[in-house]
Amino acid sequence: MNTTTIPKKEFEARLKKFQSNIKSAGLDACLVHANEADMTNVRYLSEYWPTFEAAAVFVPAEGEAVLLVGPESELYAAHRSVFTNIEKMIEYRESAEPECPGMIFATYKDIVAKYLKKDNIKKLGIVGWAITPLPVYMSLKRQFPDIELVKADHTFLPLRFVKSENELDCMRKAYAISELAVEAIINEIKPGMTELQVIGITQREIYKNGGEYEGHSLYCFCGPSTNNAISRPTHNKIIKNEVIQLNIGARVSGYSSSVGLPISIGPLPERKKKLIDFGLEAHFKTIELLGAGKPAASVVKEYENWVKSKGFEKYMLYGPCHSIGMVEVEQPWMESTSDYNLQKNMTFQVDTFFYDHDFGLRWENGVILKDGGVEMLSSKFMKNVVID
Amino acid sequence: MNTTTIPKKEFEARLKKFQSNIKSAGLDACLVHANEADMTNVRYLSEYWPTFEAAAVFVPAEGEAVLLVGPESELYAAHRSVFTNIEKMIEYRESAEPECPGMIFATYKDIVAKYLKKDNIKKLGIVGWAITPLPVYMSLKRQFPDIELVKADHTFLPLRFVKSENELDCMRKAYAISELAVEAIINEIKPGMTELQVIGITQREIYKNGGEYEGHSLYCFCGPSTNNAISRPTHNKIIKNEVIQLNIGARVSGYSSSVGLPISIGPLPERKKKLIDFGLEAHFKTIELLGAGKPAASVVKEYENWVKSKGFEKYMLYGPCHSIGMVEVEQPWMESTSDYNLQKNMTFQVDTFFYDHDFGLRWENGVILKDGGVEMLSSKFMKNVVID
Repeated sequence: MNTTTIPKKEFEARLKKFQSNIKSAGLDACLVHANEADMTNVRYLSEYWPTFEAAAVFVPAEGEAVLLVGPESELYAAHRSVFTNIEKMIEYRESAEPECPGMIFATYKDIVAKYLKKDNIKKLGIVGWAITPLPVYMSLKRQFPDIELVKADHTFLPLRFVKSENELDCMRKAYAISELAVEAIINEIKPGMTELQVIGITQREIYKNGGEYEGHSLYCFCGPSTNNAISRPTHNKIIKNEVIQLNIGARVSGYSSSVGLPISIGPLPERKKKLIDFGLEAHFKTIELLGAGKPAASVVKEYENWVKSKGFEKYMLYGPCHSIGMVEVEQPWMESTSDYNLQKNMTFQVDTFFYDHDFGLRWENGVILKDGGVEMLSSKFMKNVVID
Repeated sequence: MNTTTIPKKEFEARLKKFQSNIKSAGLDACLVHANEADMTNVRYLSEYWPTFEAAAVFVPAEGEAVLLVGPESELYAAHRSVFTNIEKMIEYRESAEPECPGMIFATYKDIVAKYLKKDNIKKLGIVGWAITPLPVYMSLKRQFPDIELVKADHTFLPLRFVKSENELDCMRKAYAISELAVEAIINEIKPGMTELQVIGITQREIYKNGGEYEGHSLYCFCGPSTNNAISRPTHNKIIKNEVIQLNIGARVSGYSSSVGLPISIGPLPERKKKLIDFGLEAHFKTIELLGAGKPAASVVKEYENWVKSKGFEKYMLYGPCHSIGMVEVEQPWMESTSDYNLQKNMTFQVDTFFYDHDFGLRWENGVILKDGGVEMLSSKFMKNVVID
């Protein structure tokens, strides 16, 4: 049950490639940030997954990297990460900001001296720019007044775009668990349950079948709130003859999944059924458009033109795909402005969302890009499910 | 099941008090940040709880406040929050940074013009400084080159220190659900289950009984990793005659709880039992030391002296209490450097952690401070549990 994971050698290879990119970019080092909600970049390098506290990896262009953790995480990080270099820093304490009297912490000056073997640093790349918080920035600026801090996600994120066989195995397993959870919901959901109680069924199945966590905040919405592109489940009750939207994702060894479909208990009115059926048709259409070698933007344009040709563009918010891997939505996005070609073993979430004023629906399944097509990561629930 | 919540009037009163603090601090406005992992400050003001994306509330010293959300959250925020002023900003997009071609966003300049009714802002307080990320900071600096940004958590967090009756009701319910989950674990845990499968039992119970989410990342550790102050459960198997540490917390309407205890299946060796028994004695001792009116630092000092007098200080990492409320660990901490007095209706987590080289244990229960003592938020599991 716990054998699907990333071997230590693969972590070492990732670090090596990253260091080569840091060097090519003319940076002295990179500082890679993670918090409890987005641990992906730090976990990709170290297998460490913080809780309560934040974390970072300091990676010099040459030499040894170091995992930076908060006041309470030293033993946990030693147990969990593939790193033996671990330093405790106040910048990574939890957001309630304990003072930790009597504890001793490393400073960025200490880290630079020990791992860059210099007393100054000129150009530091920040990876995870979007989540790097002010205490990290302020400490760096205070300790190195002339430091140049540059957004350096481009030196790192592309390493995650094409998945290895080990990564694909984690994802295959995560999707299989998600499908088991959807199956359990379909078997057990009843009118009068709350949306959150349905999530309880899901959580039980995710952990029972070998998941380590939810892959994203789990969705079960019934009725009008299905038109929220993103949302959270509530204590509202499941009712008959209404759209019930499920988006269920398990995580395995850091790799996420998501299976999404609209279901109902008893039949739906014709207007709703029609948009759901069109959504499923659009979902299949997107899958048909995918394959290694193709420009990403052309998939978006062909999809949007097809939706328009069918007269459904007024119900479309966005689509049709985003990358999935360590987080349910990761780079690269597939947008009309995308300027890359699809590559073999990139993994995408086919994400087909349509909405009207009083309901919405989302079909989601995962694919691995292959030459001339895709391998489906999930496909059991690409169908209408109407429960008696 | 869904009636325990915070009424709209209380949200309005919170905002009013906050605006009075902003004015007293000589600030033009405050910008309050939240992300998926720490949504507390934004939720306290708006009831909005972001998913995937981040969020903020812009609160001028006088006039109307506004909820700032990401590209996909507009409808969700309108459904969920008590605010009618909602603006969409690119700074609050998810960390995978979609470009969102064709979408239109407000800028901070727009927000200042509309809600501060000025074309410039001189002094802006940042609340949630520890989690405010670089894109927010950089946009503010770019749009208002002369702006003074100051950490302003002190204008806000004290509003959360003393809980209202509605808040206490949410917490009482959250603790009751946590106790039900612990009970289910004790009934169902078996050797050979993985730590994560035990978490699945917990999650099922939290949602079944009216919780909205876990109150913190849930703990079930068996064996040596129980000496990690913080950690995450793994696929390791539960075994007999070993310390199994549980820390189980449900969340209700944004309010967290946690019940922690070490259990075992079959008896433990005498050395481990002795430290566990001492931990429980220390847990009761802390509760005895608590009461409204007392200086917080004196509780810490009396506790630490007592532990020393018993000869157990070498097993102590920290203690004995931290505040609990919207997050399992929130301000104020109780540390030897604390400079405040305990007040009636503050809520603390009595958190008693001791560890040795090969195991650890943590007793946790919640209290509401009262004159001359406490009301227990949980107390069913302040006892040794040895399963046959």
